[in-house]
Amino acid sequence: MKKLINKPEDVVVEELKGIEYAHPDLVKVHYEPNFIYRADAPVQGKVAVISGGGSGHEPMHGGFVGMGMLDAACPGAVFTSPTPDQMLEATKMVHGGAGVLHIVKNYTGDILNFDMAADLARAEGIEVESVVTNDDVAVQDSLYTAGRRGVGVTVLAEKICGAAAEEGRSLKDVADVCRKVNGWGRSMGMALTSCTVPHAGKPTFDLPEDEMEIGIGIHGEPGRTRMKLKSADEITEMLMEPILNDLPFQAGDNVLLFVNSMGGTPLIELYIVYRKAYEIATKAGLKVVRNLIGPYITSLEMAGCSITLLKMDDDLIRLWDAPVKTPALRWGV
Amino acid sequence: MKKLINKPEDVVVEELKGIEYAHPDLVKVHYEPNFIYRADAPVQGKVAVISGGGSGHEPMHGGFVGMGMLDAACPGAVFTSPTPDQMLEATKMVHGGAGVLHIVKNYTGDILNFDMAADLARAEGIEVESVVTNDDVAVQDSLYTAGRRGVGVTVLAEKICGAAAEEGRSLKDVADVCRKVNGWGRSMGMALTSCTVPHAGKPTFDLPEDEMEIGIGIHGEPGRTRMKLKSADEITEMLMEPILNDLPFQAGDNVLLFVNSMGGTPLIELYIVYRKAYEIATKAGLKVVRNLIGPYITSLEMAGCSITLLKMDDDLIRLWDAPVKTPALRWGV
Repeated sequence: MKKLINKPEDVVVEELKGIEYAHPDLVKVHYEPNFIYRADAPVQGKVAVISGGGSGHEPMHGGFVGMGMLDAACPGAVFTSPTPDQMLEATKMVHGGAGVLHIVKNYTGDILNFDMAADLARAEGIEVESVVTNDDVAVQDSLYTAGRRGVGVTVLAEKICGAAAEEGRSLKDVADVCRKVNGWGRSMGMALTSCTVPHAGKPTFDLPEDEMEIGIGIHGEPGRTRMKLKSADEITEMLMEPILNDLPFQAGDNVLLFVNSMGGTPLIELYIVYRKAYEIATKAGLKVVRNLIGPYITSLEMAGCSITLLKMDDDLIRLWDAPVKTPALRWGV
Repeated sequence: MKKLINKPEDVVVEELKGIEYAHPDLVKVHYEPNFIYRADAPVQGKVAVISGGGSGHEPMHGGFVGMGMLDAACPGAVFTSPTPDQMLEATKMVHGGAGVLHIVKNYTGDILNFDMAADLARAEGIEVESVVTNDDVAVQDSLYTAGRRGVGVTVLAEKICGAAAEEGRSLKDVADVCRKVNGWGRSMGMALTSCTVPHAGKPTFDLPEDEMEIGIGIHGEPGRTRMKLKSADEITEMLMEPILNDLPFQAGDNVLLFVNSMGGTPLIELYIVYRKAYEIATKAGLKVVRNLIGPYITSLEMAGCSITLLKMDDDLIRLWDAPVKTPALRWGV
């Protein structure tokens, strides 16, 4: 296992310490239970937006805490759901009197633990809404999921809902925006290599030198099919076709095109994929009005990429463009 | 070779096409000769700042073109210097009447070709200054270099000089700022794995599963020493010590701490390294007042990291904080 780590059991807390040192102007870190929260939390009168999940997907979610995006993020152990006490304490810490939105990726552990935290927070008088993301068109059910997995759209939902909260919308309205983004977004990913969970010490799965996995999950869980390695253009077609064939895109729609690195794939390759994905989307009559290209929802050092397409109306475009200031996404300020 | 590419000979031009599709608001792409330039170039009356080098180090340099940073970037083939005609045409395209600064990483090919381009541009009446970066403390000479290699400080110099040009300083002043940044910055890198140049189709070097290379160059050229894999903290100490022992840091200095991924190392590991580097710098009496953490000067998919420390005075801090709007670095706008 070749990693820049010390002891596997210290990975998450040492990463959190690095974040604490690096971004004191943006975030604070709470330990035991572990969560990252806005340096100026709670923002009185604003809906608070929280997410979380297993570590190993950085910068998601901790890198997205700050003005215009998340109020807090709860990191579990690598590829392991955070515990209810993390979400509960984070919820109490950032609640500014206008309620809290939990954005939850559709994995069984995350759903259960966020649900429990929401119930506990409600028992303490905090209004909580939960929205589940499930945008991965690759498989209907998976190793860790009943129904579709929540993947790339989560990043976009966190940005857009953070902006909606920032401009003073109600909890119900922010949750409605989140449901709209999830309903209008579709994703699919692929892997060239496996990743290695530090505690496990060996690759999650074996992938021969001439093979790839299409429809991979963000924990290395199996996808649709394993096949011989193909060209970037063929791979991009294999990802774009199921996305476009699913709801809800029509010729003439404005879309955001998000090409994401699984962690080990460099930017030069992402732009090659973006080029083909853009051409396919354009040929399908879609207008790519916004984009995001880089490592935003990763699987440790896995090589590969995912593509997310999100239909955008004027409100979503405006919320996407709104200022954001977090460790990993920043513009307008 | 597992990469998201089509034909190896099309990698650079297909990447450029992706950049052209993705960022029309920020940059334009010129083909044959290949260069990326500011969408609003030339900016009349402003010093133009240009850099370039082999491809495979993305986002450097093309991702740094835009307001407040570079006016143009010239990408060569992967790990191969761009040709003089690229730099010459880029220089003519972005020259706004106030002269052009060439920021050149110290590699023999880059030096020769940028020198020739500068001479040709001067013959056409354009004032050109060149500043060479050579911040890598790992080795005195290397496979492609007489003297120290230019690495991480180049990213910082491009940001800071871009800001100096933006606020209307003269060519001489912007070049002086560049020399100051290079003189005040020191770097060192290491690799956990090799990378594979698409044309070569096989790893640049072999590195056994339990070994790492300290002092690696950004093309996989040999570093100081190869040794058994160590912990992140031990590795960070091995990078920080030669940096701190070199000029020009003193207790009490303000510094920028830049922890860079070589391409295949994910963010979670960079923060673990940042944590230790921050503690070492602080213990040495330095005040870490700014930082940069992520993949900014890479070696394709190589796993590993580099650390750059830059002494900062008030002028450099102000220029670092100035607004920047490029594909890969953006804040303040």
